[in-house]
Amino acid sequence: MDYRQAGVDIDAADEAKGRIRTLARATFNASVLSDIGSFGGMFRPDFGRYREPVLVASTDSVGTKVKVATAAGMHGDVGYDIVAHCVNDILVQGAVPLFFLDYLALGRMDPGRVEEIVSGLSRACRELGCPLIGGETAQMPDVYAPEDYDLAGFIVGVVEKDKALTGTRVKAGDHLLGLPSSGLHTNGYTLARRVLLEHMGLDVHATLPELGTTLARALLAPHRSYLSALEPLLERDKVAALAHITGGGFVGNVPRVLPPGLGAVIRLSAWTPPPLFRLIQKGGDVDEAEMYRTFNMGIGMVVVVAPSDLHDVEHSLERRGETPVLVGRVVEGEGVRLE
Amino acid sequence: MDYRQAGVDIDAADEAKGRIRTLARATFNASVLSDIGSFGGMFRPDFGRYREPVLVASTDSVGTKVKVATAAGMHGDVGYDIVAHCVNDILVQGAVPLFFLDYLALGRMDPGRVEEIVSGLSRACRELGCPLIGGETAQMPDVYAPEDYDLAGFIVGVVEKDKALTGTRVKAGDHLLGLPSSGLHTNGYTLARRVLLEHMGLDVHATLPELGTTLARALLAPHRSYLSALEPLLERDKVAALAHITGGGFVGNVPRVLPPGLGAVIRLSAWTPPPLFRLIQKGGDVDEAEMYRTFNMGIGMVVVVAPSDLHDVEHSLERRGETPVLVGRVVEGEGVRLE
Repeated sequence: MDYRQAGVDIDAADEAKGRIRTLARATFNASVLSDIGSFGGMFRPDFGRYREPVLVASTDSVGTKVKVATAAGMHGDVGYDIVAHCVNDILVQGAVPLFFLDYLALGRMDPGRVEEIVSGLSRACRELGCPLIGGETAQMPDVYAPEDYDLAGFIVGVVEKDKALTGTRVKAGDHLLGLPSSGLHTNGYTLARRVLLEHMGLDVHATLPELGTTLARALLAPHRSYLSALEPLLERDKVAALAHITGGGFVGNVPRVLPPGLGAVIRLSAWTPPPLFRLIQKGGDVDEAEMYRTFNMGIGMVVVVAPSDLHDVEHSLERRGETPVLVGRVVEGEGVRLE
Repeated sequence: MDYRQAGVDIDAADEAKGRIRTLARATFNASVLSDIGSFGGMFRPDFGRYREPVLVASTDSVGTKVKVATAAGMHGDVGYDIVAHCVNDILVQGAVPLFFLDYLALGRMDPGRVEEIVSGLSRACRELGCPLIGGETAQMPDVYAPEDYDLAGFIVGVVEKDKALTGTRVKAGDHLLGLPSSGLHTNGYTLARRVLLEHMGLDVHATLPELGTTLARALLAPHRSYLSALEPLLERDKVAALAHITGGGFVGNVPRVLPPGLGAVIRLSAWTPPPLFRLIQKGGDVDEAEMYRTFNMGIGMVVVVAPSDLHDVEHSLERRGETPVLVGRVVEGEGVRLE
């Protein structure tokens, strides 16, 4: 018996590594001191403009969005998703990206599939200024079915210590500005798949008039990053807090960035959730509250802004192509109330 | 329909998060500025003693060792494994750990199982001085069978730029000292499982006289970290290079740390691979070369040492309880020759 017969193909892995190396190199900047293939990625940070730099690190995966990608045979955007997701997660604490690593585990090593996934990673890393300095591509037959895989990302960023967003600047009466999401982003896919693909039996390649595109394209729309829209406001100290609306929705995520004693009211009449959310809700007869604690419902980031800064912040966001929506207020109390 | 019926149990996830928080807090040091549950883990590095600090980051998983853990119902050590593995990977470039994050994805959220896994992470993080500042615990039904999971780790460490091991110090004639592994560490489990559990049909709980323990305990022996043995030698500049013997064995890993134009000769008569390796080799009729490119064969770390430093290094390692073995030499040429 040999390793290949057992299900691990070292030659295919070497082929994949070669393709990854090219895509990763395209993301490098002057801080990257190592090539892909080293045991560890080496990054010489330039902390010259920081008095007290704090590293901010986060990890996440795209969840079962990978099952939709596999069903549709479209793997070009899940890599983009995980970078954008991680960039947003550290942005919430005021940090900008330094570097990124990915973890890709597959049932079967398919160099073409790996290249498609890593192309999306590379594109997002270039766009968001976050070099891909390392990663792991693991063949794990028996844990993953031959066509299945999982994709996780790890990011490290930096923030000036006294500029970090830790909730202390938030006051009752602050406004909550919502920034639109591009779709489900990377959360709620297990429920969405059950309803749309299993219960309703929709074909992932079918064009749905209410979505204006195929179900696959609507479900696989890339996770938006809010870095370019928010970085200028962070530099000018115009943001009191940020909440990335991921798993748990408003109810789960807004309280994570509020100090003790403060809660939030979200006015559901302030915006109309895009048709994809309504399709899931109707198709699965999903309770309204369950929808709001599972999905982002059309708002991917909540910006907490002092009343005196509201006009300035709205204007700045609009100039960067955003369409901010006043979705609620910070109030005395705890938790999130949906009105 | 709701999220729980779809296969994602938010209540169980909250229960697991509470247990993780306690275990993670036990690893914190003064540099950790955030609690578990933040979007990103915040770490204020103390680079006071570094002239030019370089961050070294790496990610890896325990591979299909998780399948053995599941078969045996013993999840307490895979968390230890992934921390030790990642610590060794950055040690190879001369870096010591700053912090760690984990990615744990499961088919079904079982808070007890999660706690068992994270206990091992926490123990290793405390032992190796590497706080667990964040992570992700993802429920992914359909990607993972209900009892299956995957565990990846992400580490960031630091090294002084001019002390980083990049291969430039290695010269022809340098000695290769091998440090014993504790077992398979985290590589080759797909082949090992095929041979031992499927082809030979061995019971994972059976005590095997040649192993002196049960197959489960032998296969799940924790991955050793070489940090404490090697850190003093790195500080004294006594190490020319280090190779962590992971997937690919000697053939795959030693060349990764040698400069162009240099190769290595490994004398197989220098040590006797432990009985577990021979059991796999005989049981699966696995070719000798295949064994050496799949498994560590009893040597988990190779230390490249200049002839003038050999005695000093051996003595230092022995005083720290290691039993270094002279396994070969650096030679002109390329690649690794097994003699």
